Amino acid sequence: MRNLGKNRLEGFSDGVVAIIITIMVLELKVPHDTTLDGLLRLTPVFLSYVLSFVVVAILWANHHHLVHTVERANGRVLWLNNHLLFWLSLVPFTTAYMGENHLAPLPVALYGLVMFFSGVAFDLLRREIAQDSGADPALAQVHRRSNWSNALAAALYLASAPLAWVSVWISVAIFVLVPLIYFMPGQTIEKLALQGSR
Amino acid sequence: MRNLGKNRLEGFSDGVVAIIITIMVLELKVPHDTTLDGLLRLTPVFLSYVLSFVVVAILWANHHHLVHTVERANGRVLWLNNHLLFWLSLVPFTTAYMGENHLAPLPVALYGLVMFFSGVAFDLLRREIAQDSGADPALAQVHRRSNWSNALAAALYLASAPLAWVSVWISVAIFVLVPLIYFMPGQTIEKLALQGSR
Amino acid sequence: MRNLGKNRLEGFSDGVVAIIITIMVLELKVPHDTTLDGLLRLTPVFLSYVLSFVVVAILWANHHHLVHTVERANGRVLWLNNHLLFWLSLVPFTTAYMGENHLAPLPVALYGLVMFFSGVAFDLLRREIAQDSGADPALAQVHRRSNWSNALAAALYLASAPLAWVSVWISVAIFVLVPLIYFMPGQTIEKLALQGSR
Amino acid sequence: MRNLGKNRLEGFSDGVVAIIITIMVLELKVPHDTTLDGLLRLTPVFLSYVLSFVVVAILWANHHHLVHTVERANGRVLWLNNHLLFWLSLVPFTTAYMGENHLAPLPVALYGLVMFFSGVAFDLLRREIAQDSGADPALAQVHRRSNWSNALAAALYLASAPLAWVSVWISVAIFVLVPLIYFMPGQTIEKLALQGSR
Repeated sequence: MRNLGKNRLEGFSDGVVAIIITIMVLELKVPHDTTLDGLLRLTPVFLSYVLSFVVVAILWANHHHLVHTVERANGRVLWLNNHLLFWLSLVPFTTAYMGENHLAPLPVALYGLVMFFSGVAFDLLRREIAQDSGADPALAQVHRRSNWSNALAAALYLASAPLAWVSVWISVAIFVLVPLIYFMPGQTIEKLALQGSR
Repeated sequence: MRNLGKNRLEGFSDGVVAIIITIMVLELKVPHDTTLDGLLRLTPVFLSYVLSFVVVAILWANHHHLVHTVERANGRVLWLNNHLLFWLSLVPFTTAYMGENHLAPLPVALYGLVMFFSGVAFDLLRREIAQDSGADPALAQVHRRSNWSNALAAALYLASAPLAWVSVWISVAIFVLVPLIYFMPGQTIEKLALQGSR
Repeated sequence: MRNLGKNRLEGFSDGVVAIIITIMVLELKVPHDTTLDGLLRLTPVFLSYVLSFVVVAILWANHHHLVHTVERANGRVLWLNNHLLFWLSLVPFTTAYMGENHLAPLPVALYGLVMFFSGVAFDLLRREIAQDSGADPALAQVHRRSNWSNALAAALYLASAPLAWVSVWISVAIFVLVPLIYFMPGQTIEKLALQGSR
Repeated sequence: MRNLGKNRLEGFSDGVVAIIITIMVLELKVPHDTTLDGLLRLTPVFLSYVLSFVVVAILWANHHHLVHTVERANGRVLWLNNHLLFWLSLVPFTTAYMGENHLAPLPVALYGLVMFFSGVAFDLLRREIAQDSGADPALAQVHRRSNWSNALAAALYLASAPLAWVSVWISVAIFVLVPLIYFMPGQTIEKLALQGSR
C-alpha cells in the first residue's frame, strides 16, 4: 500500500514535469519567414527554453533521487510536492515572458523569483523527507550537505531578482551557475541509493 | 490482475489531472509590455489559476486516498471515474472564463456549477467505492462523515451560482471556503490507510 | 519482463488518450462576451466535445479490458497500438472541425471517417491479441461476438461519411448510436477478466 | 529499488513522447472554410505530422526495447535520456516549420538536423546501456549491428541538411527512407528480450 501511494506521487509529478517541459516548447512560435534571419530571431526564446529545460530536468532528476529514499508518502509529503509542482508550473510562463521580451529587467527578475520559490519548495519537501529517514547516518550527511548547497542556490536566485535592474547579465550568469550547484547532491544521493539497493 | 486495472485507473486519472493543471497555466498569456502594470493586469487570471490549482490538487489528493481503499476497479468505478474527469476537464475553461472577464456574474456562476458537478461526480465515485468496502467499520465511519461534508460542499457550490448575481464576492468567498471542508475527510482516510499498511 | 513491456504500452496509451481528451477542451475558446448568448454560441463545439469524450473514453475502457487479456506485448501489438493512437490523435482536429463549422457536410463526413479508421485500428489490435489467447474458450466467444459488433460499428461509421451529404443529422444519429454498440463487448470481457482474477 | 528508478525513467519518457506526438497535431489548425480545397490546403502539414509521428513512434518503440535490457538507471543513463528528450521536444517545432512553409530549404534542413541530433542522442544512450550489458554475447551482437545502422541513419540525416538546397525532395526521400533502417535493430532486440523472458 505504501509503494502504491509513492508510485502515484511519482507518476503525477512525472506527468506534470513532462507537460511543463513540452509546453515550454510551444512558445517557439513557427516563423512564416523562411530566411535564416527569421529563424535567428527566435534565439532568445530558444535559449530561455534550453535554460529552463536544464533546470527543470535537474529538479526532476533530484526529485527522482529524493523520492527514492521515501518510506511512505504521507499527507505532508503529498502537499509539499503539490506546492513544488505549483511553482514549477509557472516556469513556462516566466520562461516565455523572459524570452519574448529580450531580457528586460522585470521578466528576468520574475524568472529568478519563481526559480527561488521552486528551490525553496524543493528544499521544504527534502527536509520533510529527511526527517523521516533521520536514522540512516550516511543519508543524514547527504542531507546536511544539501542544506548548505540549497541555501546557497536559493540565496543566489533571490539576489538575481533585484540585480536584474543593475544588469540583467548578472542575473543570467546566476541562472547558468546555479544548476551546477544543484547538480551535485543528487549524484551523491544516487550513489547511496545504489549502494542501498545492492 | 485487479491491481493492474487499478493502476491504469490511477495512471489515466493522474495524466488527465496533470494536463488539466498545466493547461490552466497556458491562460497566463505572456504580456509584451514589461512594466509592472502590464504584469499586474494578469492578477485576476493568476488568482483564478491559484484557486483552481488548489481545488484540483485537493480533489486529486482525495482521489489518491479514496482509490487506496479500492479492492478492484470494476466497470462502474471506471465510468464514474471518467464522469469525474469529464467535469474536471471543464475546469480550465471555467477558470479562464472567470479570470479573463474580471469576475462577471455569468462566468462566476458557471465556475460554481462546474465545481458543483465535479463535487457530485467525486461523491458518486466515493459512494460506489464505499459500498464495496462496507465491511470495514472504521472506513465506514469515515465515509459517513464524508457524506455530510461532501453534501455541504455541494450545496455551497450550487448556491454560489445564483448568488453570483447578488454579489460575485459571496460566490468567491464560497470558492475559497469549500476547499477547506473537502480537505478534512481525505486526511482521515489517509490515517486509516496508513494504519492499514502497518 | 513481459509485464514491464505491457505496462509501458498501457502507460503510453493512457498518456496519449489523456492528452487527446484534454486537448479537445482547448477548442472551447473563452468568450470575452459574458452574456448568456455569448456562452450559448459555444454549444455546437461543446456538444462535439461531449460526443468525442464519450467515444474516446469508451475506446479507452475497452482498450483497458482488452490489454488485460494480453500475455505479452510483442512488436505487432506495439505497432497496431501505435496505429490506433495515430487515428485517435486526429480526433481533436475532426471534433473541432465539426464543432466550429456548425455541422457542415465535409467536417461531419471527416469525423465519421476518422472514427471508422479508429474503429478498424482497434479491431485489428483486438484480432492480433485474440490470436494469442485462442486457447481460452470463454474469451474466444467474447471475441467472436466482438467480430460482429465491431464490424457493424465500422460499417455504420463508414456509411455516415457519404450520408452527411444527404443529411448531417443521419450522420450525427450514427455518432450517438455507435458508442452504445461498442459499449457491450467490453463489459463482457471485463466480467471474464474479473472471473479470471478470482 | 532499481526497478523503481527504471520505471520512472520509462514513465517520464512515455509522458514526454506522448505529449510531443499530441502537440504536433495542434499544428493542424482547424479551417473555417468547409470546402474540400480548404481541407486539402492542410496536406503538407498533415504529411509532416504523419512522418514525424512514425519517426517518434519508432524511436519510442526502440527506446522501449532498449530500456528492457537496462539493469539499473544510473545518473549517466538518466541524463543521456534527458538529452534525447530535449532533441525530441524540438520535433513539433521543426515539423510545423517544415509543414507550414511548403518545404522551403531552411525548414527542411532544420528538420534533418534535429533528426540527426535525436538519432545521435539515441545512439549515445544505447552505447551507455550497451556497456553495462557487455557480458551477454547475443545482446552484444545486436548492439554491434546497431552501431552500423545508427551510424548510417545519422549520416543520412546529416546529409539531408545541405542537400535541401540542392533539392528538398532528396531530403524528403531520406526522411522517408531512414525510419526503415531504424526499424530493424529494435525488432532484433525485441526477439532477444522475449527469449530472455522465457
